[in-house]
Amino acid sequence: MTAQADPAVGTLSEATVLRAIRERLGASSALVGPGDDAAVVAAPDGRVVATTDTLVHGPDFRLAWSSASDLGWKAAAVNLADIAAMGARPTALFVALAMPDDTRLSFVEGLAEGLRAACDALAPGCAVEGGDLTVSDTLTIAVTALGSLDGRAPVLRSGARPGDVVALAGDLGRAARGLAILFGRFRDAAGTPVPVDPAAVSPDEAADLGAQLRPSPPLALGPLAAEAGATALMDVSDGLVLDATRMAEASRVTVALDAAAVGPEPALSGGEDHGLLATFPPAVALPEGFRAIGRVEGAGTAPVLVDGQAPGGRGGWDPYRDWDSARG
Amino acid sequence: MTAQADPAVGTLSEATVLRAIRERLGASSALVGPGDDAAVVAAPDGRVVATTDTLVHGPDFRLAWSSASDLGWKAAAVNLADIAAMGARPTALFVALAMPDDTRLSFVEGLAEGLRAACDALAPGCAVEGGDLTVSDTLTIAVTALGSLDGRAPVLRSGARPGDVVALAGDLGRAARGLAILFGRFRDAAGTPVPVDPAAVSPDEAADLGAQLRPSPPLALGPLAAEAGATALMDVSDGLVLDATRMAEASRVTVALDAAAVGPEPALSGGEDHGLLATFPPAVALPEGFRAIGRVEGAGTAPVLVDGQAPGGRGGWDPYRDWDSARG
Repeated sequence: MTAQADPAVGTLSEATVLRAIRERLGASSALVGPGDDAAVVAAPDGRVVATTDTLVHGPDFRLAWSSASDLGWKAAAVNLADIAAMGARPTALFVALAMPDDTRLSFVEGLAEGLRAACDALAPGCAVEGGDLTVSDTLTIAVTALGSLDGRAPVLRSGARPGDVVALAGDLGRAARGLAILFGRFRDAAGTPVPVDPAAVSPDEAADLGAQLRPSPPLALGPLAAEAGATALMDVSDGLVLDATRMAEASRVTVALDAAAVGPEPALSGGEDHGLLATFPPAVALPEGFRAIGRVEGAGTAPVLVDGQAPGGRGGWDPYRDWDSARG
Repeated sequence: MTAQADPAVGTLSEATVLRAIRERLGASSALVGPGDDAAVVAAPDGRVVATTDTLVHGPDFRLAWSSASDLGWKAAAVNLADIAAMGARPTALFVALAMPDDTRLSFVEGLAEGLRAACDALAPGCAVEGGDLTVSDTLTIAVTALGSLDGRAPVLRSGARPGDVVALAGDLGRAARGLAILFGRFRDAAGTPVPVDPAAVSPDEAADLGAQLRPSPPLALGPLAAEAGATALMDVSDGLVLDATRMAEASRVTVALDAAAVGPEPALSGGEDHGLLATFPPAVALPEGFRAIGRVEGAGTAPVLVDGQAPGGRGGWDPYRDWDSARG
């Protein structure tokens, strides 16, 4: 596409860029949708669930590996997952997009299409209801998601009780394997990311890449877990052991995992799975989509045990400790 | 302060940085505050007002001119203003903070203090109820604000009717004069921003700088305008003429401004005022804090008139058209 046919956003008015985005976002389901100072979203039970999460070029994605649509999809999916992890149903997204002024309009259009596709596929009825455009040297997508509990109590991290079954919905380790494939096989000699060659990946590897670049968290299982009586619920985003540690500490219990049920590394420590970690009273039949991976014990010497042993390593991703901008 | 006493966030765990922030945010007023996958905020009338706005280092602020506390304050204030501009009361903020890993902990602490101070001063009862930390080469603060209409109808941009009085609350042009002082007098020979010398600015100039760096929008007047019967309401963020044009186009009317009531430039085109532009039926006594600056007419040849003439120039700030990263 020529530059004339695909102009840089820096050559366009904000209104033109906004119009291109809004045409691709689908119908608003809000009481007041995009275009005013703020949107008005229904909160039918008098409460709103809200969370925010950001994707930054470099630490969180590389344009050689992620298409614009992939980025929009992932920015939506990771936020929708946090809403589901409270037992709630997503109702609206708000997107703050900061981008270099040489960003092509087609990129912005693809991003909007990805946001919409993720909402349509993962959280029907949820749409982008507002946002903000800013110029930045670093492409940054900050999304805030809202949700409704529809009268249910929120399911917190702090409710796990000794005797509960520990259960998981979604994949473990796929997203980390996808990232390892990207870093291991799709960089040039200087370490710079290069596009994925579809002919060079097996179907299972393609699924790993999909989990990393375009995740599909089991969102509908959040409200289902809440209805089934889950005592604790959280999104697994930073690796199972690290997130289970957070749940154990919030609940003042020990989470005892069965290694065979969890599977081999990177299932224990790989990040970005966006599965749902839940605890259920032992008498509850696990909702379809959840599988048992352990049990809750009284607080012991370690917050998390794997086959009775404290796991080695640090078990997860910490953005400040682990990101090395020189390595990328 | 030594590097040891004021470490870079890149040398700390995310939990340590989060703890330092949360200690400075004040008490949560949410049903579920920070620390879980998402927060739960009361939406007493079954609706929630939501908006997002971002500050990016470079286009939106310079660290030589803004303290960390100033930035936190401004990031809160500009979002709170958009909530008030719907006639709503702010209830919660969510803050996505992306920062270089050499950012000092004291900076993050100052930012949190500024966020809290703005909430306490401008929107008592509103607090930061969630957020996200990310590494980025470009310091970026994306804030989402939520609010409650407390049973009132939202006041949109589109409700202005011929015969209505056009009214304004807040200053016009001060923030633009403040920016002109910064660019004109507090840069070195190479054009690089240098800190403001307080001894070199008059009291009125200090007020201009305050309006630019630490704005205090008249937030309480948003709900008051709604209660008084405002037909249209919006935040004046991109210059009076440009924002009045948006209101006129949304309402399909002409906004006729009185030059004497508006005042000289940069009152007409200066950005970042964050006053409230409202229209009221002629029989309504303007709420204290609003002053009449014109009247609404049937749609004519131009969306906005100043003393009967279409204003010259382009009348406002457009981030894509106007930002020149080389100039800074």
